[in-house]
Amino acid sequence: MAFSNWFSRLRSSYKPNKFIQNSFIHSKHTPQSRSLENTVIINSNNSNKQSWRSFLLPIVLAVSGGSFAFHLQKNASLCDAPNHQERVGRIGGKDSTKYVVKGTYKPVPSELIRELKAICQDNMTLDYDERYFHGKPQYSFHKAVNIPDVVVFPRSEDEVSKIVRSCNRHKVPIVPYGGATSIEGHTLSPNGGVCIDMTLMKHVKALHVEDMDVVVEPGIGWMELNEYLAPYGLFFPLDPGPGATIGGMCGTRCSGSLAVRYGTMRDNVINLKAVLADGEVVKTGSRARKSAAGYDLTRLMIGSEGTLGVITEVTLRLQKIPQHSIVAMCNFPTIKDAADVAIAAMLSGIQVSRVELLDEVQVKAVNIANGKDLPEFPTLMFEFIGTEAYTREQTLIVQKIVSEHSGSDFVFAEDAETKKELWKIRKEALYACLAMAPNFEAMTTDVCVPLSQLAGLISKSKEELDASSLLCMVIAHAGDGNFHTVILFDPADEEQRKEAERLNNFMVHAALSMDGTCTGEHGVGTGKVKYLEKELGVENLRAMKKIKAALDPNNIMNPGKLIPPHICF
Amino acid sequence: MAFSNWFSRLRSSYKPNKFIQNSFIHSKHTPQSRSLENTVIINSNNSNKQSWRSFLLPIVLAVSGGSFAFHLQKNASLCDAPNHQERVGRIGGKDSTKYVVKGTYKPVPSELIRELKAICQDNMTLDYDERYFHGKPQYSFHKAVNIPDVVVFPRSEDEVSKIVRSCNRHKVPIVPYGGATSIEGHTLSPNGGVCIDMTLMKHVKALHVEDMDVVVEPGIGWMELNEYLAPYGLFFPLDPGPGATIGGMCGTRCSGSLAVRYGTMRDNVINLKAVLADGEVVKTGSRARKSAAGYDLTRLMIGSEGTLGVITEVTLRLQKIPQHSIVAMCNFPTIKDAADVAIAAMLSGIQVSRVELLDEVQVKAVNIANGKDLPEFPTLMFEFIGTEAYTREQTLIVQKIVSEHSGSDFVFAEDAETKKELWKIRKEALYACLAMAPNFEAMTTDVCVPLSQLAGLISKSKEELDASSLLCMVIAHAGDGNFHTVILFDPADEEQRKEAERLNNFMVHAALSMDGTCTGEHGVGTGKVKYLEKELGVENLRAMKKIKAALDPNNIMNPGKLIPPHICF
Repeated sequence: MAFSNWFSRLRSSYKPNKFIQNSFIHSKHTPQSRSLENTVIINSNNSNKQSWRSFLLPIVLAVSGGSFAFHLQKNASLCDAPNHQERVGRIGGKDSTKYVVKGTYKPVPSELIRELKAICQDNMTLDYDERYFHGKPQYSFHKAVNIPDVVVFPRSEDEVSKIVRSCNRHKVPIVPYGGATSIEGHTLSPNGGVCIDMTLMKHVKALHVEDMDVVVEPGIGWMELNEYLAPYGLFFPLDPGPGATIGGMCGTRCSGSLAVRYGTMRDNVINLKAVLADGEVVKTGSRARKSAAGYDLTRLMIGSEGTLGVITEVTLRLQKIPQHSIVAMCNFPTIKDAADVAIAAMLSGIQVSRVELLDEVQVKAVNIANGKDLPEFPTLMFEFIGTEAYTREQTLIVQKIVSEHSGSDFVFAEDAETKKELWKIRKEALYACLAMAPNFEAMTTDVCVPLSQLAGLISKSKEELDASSLLCMVIAHAGDGNFHTVILFDPADEEQRKEAERLNNFMVHAALSMDGTCTGEHGVGTGKVKYLEKELGVENLRAMKKIKAALDPNNIMNPGKLIPPHICF
Repeated sequence: MAFSNWFSRLRSSYKPNKFIQNSFIHSKHTPQSRSLENTVIINSNNSNKQSWRSFLLPIVLAVSGGSFAFHLQKNASLCDAPNHQERVGRIGGKDSTKYVVKGTYKPVPSELIRELKAICQDNMTLDYDERYFHGKPQYSFHKAVNIPDVVVFPRSEDEVSKIVRSCNRHKVPIVPYGGATSIEGHTLSPNGGVCIDMTLMKHVKALHVEDMDVVVEPGIGWMELNEYLAPYGLFFPLDPGPGATIGGMCGTRCSGSLAVRYGTMRDNVINLKAVLADGEVVKTGSRARKSAAGYDLTRLMIGSEGTLGVITEVTLRLQKIPQHSIVAMCNFPTIKDAADVAIAAMLSGIQVSRVELLDEVQVKAVNIANGKDLPEFPTLMFEFIGTEAYTREQTLIVQKIVSEHSGSDFVFAEDAETKKELWKIRKEALYACLAMAPNFEAMTTDVCVPLSQLAGLISKSKEELDASSLLCMVIAHAGDGNFHTVILFDPADEEQRKEAERLNNFMVHAALSMDGTCTGEHGVGTGKVKYLEKELGVENLRAMKKIKAALDPNNIMNPGKLIPPHICF
């Protein structure tokens, strides 16, 4: 699970209902899609907006600790004003945002604003609240140094193309914006510019049941999509934070707890369309399941975090909803035992659909939050899917492995209600963490290592986490070698923030020393930029920068993200 | 299966034994790798070489129909000679090689030859036979218009880097060369230049049994690798033509009959290293199973056919050798019934490891070649893998589907000998085709469509094939929507060649009209270049060309392949 944070959950809750409810938009190309009319219109005069903004803003400011060094006048005009340069400040720890704060700001020309108005009509805004909302940090440890000057809400690929073409002509930065659940500062606007909010583009354009694929616009959420697909017996098997949209999921190459079975976004996109910096619309491939025709631009766009183009359409590979499933749970004396069992299960050749590991602190948090009485030990949760006979066979194999590794309290469930109850524990783990210290923030780490290294890395990390003064919980997608820790800290206490960053840093360097990665599924954004040279080497980064420069010579596409700015070629 | 052709099989048979036998080379980094010393040395004075070349050359010339329009003096010096420009000729049908024949030829500077000699010492050659062998067409319908001026056999990444750096300085084209089993002209040298034969770089550098991955040099063959892995209970699940090397398989994004279960090369490479045009060595990622760190340069290199870099190391994802397997076979009144069953089996949610379809002509060829008495009807072959109970369960489900679709003669086997005997039918299908007309050549097609379109496309194609005067056989990886036809034609008869090309063209356009691809697994090379604009759109090709130009500004990396030369940006 790529955790949604406290902010994004809040946002998701308080976003105007019309964003949430009008999920499925009828297309004439989609006889099988549901028929609901899109009536969403956003403009700066929208009266609903003020109400939820006025609710949300004090919370945002409270949580951010009031440490914003720049002050924007509410509803001030942003075009061509002489004092805009002054708004570029340096906020946040040097270690977390040192590249972003180097972003420079140039006023957006009024001519561009006029062009955008001509393209988007009422679906754009200069309103401060809206811009602030779109530019705010996802976590306070990735502070905003700026906010967008304009927010546009395109309704079609053609509009996106025109917007991008205009921005390119004026050399004004663009930040694509989806569910904004990403962790690492992907949607920040360090250079101001134009935020392209894609959430109005959420049509299901075509569903091909026989081919088990669906063509969608990028603004649709994965949960909305799965609601749409359920009547057809199909689902899309990635489960990041609840508010995540398909476009954003492509951008960050996300995955989730089912990746051990179905792979990541990389493996589940058949093709996509994207608007490049010059406004050209590129379709990356056909709908065939495999192809050897040309460079893999699909995969190049996936994980490029909006730095190469704005995704406008995605064809996704779907899966059959399994006939049967079993959820199992067990616990272990040490976290190493639990990790060892996860590894042994994977090596046994069986096909699990989920293997999730929770440490004893996490289980304790779950007990407190949900009034449960689970044994407070490192715990593994499995899901097996397939035919009834197959899932039972797999469960027995794993039960045997568990018993050989000091595991106890092995329970499993086949009936829907008990499974739901068991899986709820894992699903609500993050909420349980946050409930442990309601006024604290959560820094979520995301390292991933080769499977053989997982037990060692978790043990090493646990020692460091346990020795820290901060409250830290471990949740791992153990079958992939990917683990998260949730580190709670008081955002008003700089020492605690630094300690959280030190722990994050410790785990990243430990993972890199084990031939692992600084980010298994959350992406680079601004937060992980500083680790890329160590992980990938300067030659790799130079190649990346050459590609970026070739496709985006004016560096307008989400600048300041993913590629370290010191890389030259 | 990406078919190896008649030439490459010959070549594989007659290549000096030392190429074949010294497969596994000990590395100090690989405690688990087998300890066999690499003693391979090639130089232009090698006495063994003449013997196998003298055997092979007459055959090559005979099969190619003696239609080569250029004539190179055997053992002539190739450096700075004034008559090199004259060697650029136009050979082959306009429709198949029109882009390649536009390649221009510039003499290789003698300074470069001296530099290469300093890098490679004896592991390079100017010998005509060797150069001819490396430059010869894979199939006669992709004729050579030139041959390389030099062939080098680097032994290390460092040597590759130095070679490429030198070539870049002199702006001399490079053609990377592996098993040379590719179908679409990938290893042709239309501009002369330097052929980099990677087959000396075939170390297994590290095997990580617990992580189920292996780090290899690109010159190792997939069959050699699987021999190496078998004692560890592991295998690499791609099965293209027998002589294919891992580097070449990355280059063409190949797959094979197991792709329906394990995916293509795209899905089975964890990371790789490549030398870019400026000589820089790029490592594309860590060994973690998933990562969201940076652009997916791994996938960008896979399928780039040597146009972006020379691959020097590959980390491959491995699979457990299954506990149990079942092979099943059945036949149908029409090819549409057979295709419908393949589709229904896939949609049932069961996990087959292979679904192969043979048409009645193919079955007849098998009967003739092997003295068998199989019912000469469209036939499906399945393989199921997993635990004993699971494979039996899956077999029964498919048997039921077969009986519901007019299928008959359903047989299945669990014992090793019978399975081998059954699977041999599929394995030897191509040989059986070729045996039908020993003096003919085979043009192999490679379209792939969304699964729902497969039955329609095969039926449509069969009508056209049956109406043709040529002998044509269908073999499909039906679970992926990918199908091949083997079209036999007399290479000396231009009308037959044209008819074969017409049929190929017909199927490609039919597939493209069904949102399919012109190549499921064989790649673009020179043969499919002309279809890319229709399949991908000019905007896609412009983006590809920008990336190519950014990474290879002098266009030295395998020029004339993959990207249509008329594309401008």
